[in-house]
Amino acid sequence: MSSYLITVCYDGTNFNGWQAQKKESLRTVQEVLEEAAERVFRKRVIITASGRTDAGVHALGQTCSFSVDTTVPPEKIADCLNCELPGDVKVLKSRSAAEGFDACRSAKRKTYLYSLYCSPRENPLLERYAARINAMPDLTKMRAAAELLCGEHDFKAFCAANSEVKTTVRTVYEIKIEPEQTVYGSFLRLYFTGNGFLYNMVRTMAGTLLEVGYGKKSLDTIEREILGNTARDAVGRTMTAKGLCLVSVEYE
Amino acid sequence: MSSYLITVCYDGTNFNGWQAQKKESLRTVQEVLEEAAERVFRKRVIITASGRTDAGVHALGQTCSFSVDTTVPPEKIADCLNCELPGDVKVLKSRSAAEGFDACRSAKRKTYLYSLYCSPRENPLLERYAARINAMPDLTKMRAAAELLCGEHDFKAFCAANSEVKTTVRTVYEIKIEPEQTVYGSFLRLYFTGNGFLYNMVRTMAGTLLEVGYGKKSLDTIEREILGNTARDAVGRTMTAKGLCLVSVEYE
Repeated sequence: MSSYLITVCYDGTNFNGWQAQKKESLRTVQEVLEEAAERVFRKRVIITASGRTDAGVHALGQTCSFSVDTTVPPEKIADCLNCELPGDVKVLKSRSAAEGFDACRSAKRKTYLYSLYCSPRENPLLERYAARINAMPDLTKMRAAAELLCGEHDFKAFCAANSEVKTTVRTVYEIKIEPEQTVYGSFLRLYFTGNGFLYNMVRTMAGTLLEVGYGKKSLDTIEREILGNTARDAVGRTMTAKGLCLVSVEYE
Repeated sequence: MSSYLITVCYDGTNFNGWQAQKKESLRTVQEVLEEAAERVFRKRVIITASGRTDAGVHALGQTCSFSVDTTVPPEKIADCLNCELPGDVKVLKSRSAAEGFDACRSAKRKTYLYSLYCSPRENPLLERYAARINAMPDLTKMRAAAELLCGEHDFKAFCAANSEVKTTVRTVYEIKIEPEQTVYGSFLRLYFTGNGFLYNMVRTMAGTLLEVGYGKKSLDTIEREILGNTARDAVGRTMTAKGLCLVSVEYE
């Protein structure tokens, strides 16, 4: 058996997240990919992602690994899978990987993008991939708050209450806050790079940064209550899934 | 009765174009808007657009006019209509207009955008609003061809054969060809501004410019065969509807 790494792009709108569910009625990216792989390789293949994405979350560069016996050249596996995949999930790249390579355990850095568009009214051309804000927040304040979040911290406060993880300590390497003017309107792009993120952590960080930008939350609250006391009720609201996109995953 | 002008944005994916159809099974933007207006104003209202858009074509700034008796302040009409509209069509702005204002007859300039994204494989996050190209064409050649198309010409060759119009002479004021790098990938944006466009004209101009950019068609062909002889078979292919978006309509 040889191991492979594929880069997968999906529109999360009509998926119930990455992970295969027990309920057959819930369509997930993993199931759709594994079904396509079964048709290509004529046997059941387990596909492991760098990490789960929630229902409605998009991915530009989700990475996945699997092992299979095949004569298809590694770089052609993408095309073979794409022939069997629906329009809302496609493989952008495929290559061979070291024997037993695991896309989850070997992941070193992940970058997520949270997209906001600024408009007093809903824009049907932007609603699918971004959350709407009425007015631009103060970017200087947001950047100062972002700086506080960077580094190694206990992010327990940013994590969904029902999450079961060994540790809630994570390292955020960088948060970039970039306004962008396009023909469709004004965007605010929030990029988060870290060694891993807890369940809902990026969406809650985005909500918290926005509240700082609107003057509803102080830098002091972030420093003392959230990072200091890991108080769940002090963080901002969890932003809607559709604004979130897993951009890239890096390996050594 | 007072007259109003509204700016409408729609995702054309699930519409059979602008114009109301006799077949009730075909969902159109005009019907959906007129049904919303009927619920808001409690009477039948005829809504006139700046022009029809084809099935699958998007609009960022379609303009429409209508006349109605109402006590709703002009700028609040957008919100009232939006309450009754589905997610894929929304009113971005509303204002009062001169008595009997007609959004079609008074339109002076229209700008369409044709969006292309450059990727060797399909990208589910870009497929909805752009057509895919494998490689970037030669922009210098495309711009030279665009210059030939600008001005007043008989654009008969760019018009669908079954179209019934009085004249196929139109003026193209400007064609802008702009590459754009985004986190999602490389785009090529083609902007067409003119006093009006024939049925399929923008999509056929986009296809023709692309063929020039790939060296499959010469500037000479455009000048002599297409604009000179209005030969339908000399133009490029009609590009897919989903890449097209009506950006704005200008009035005096």
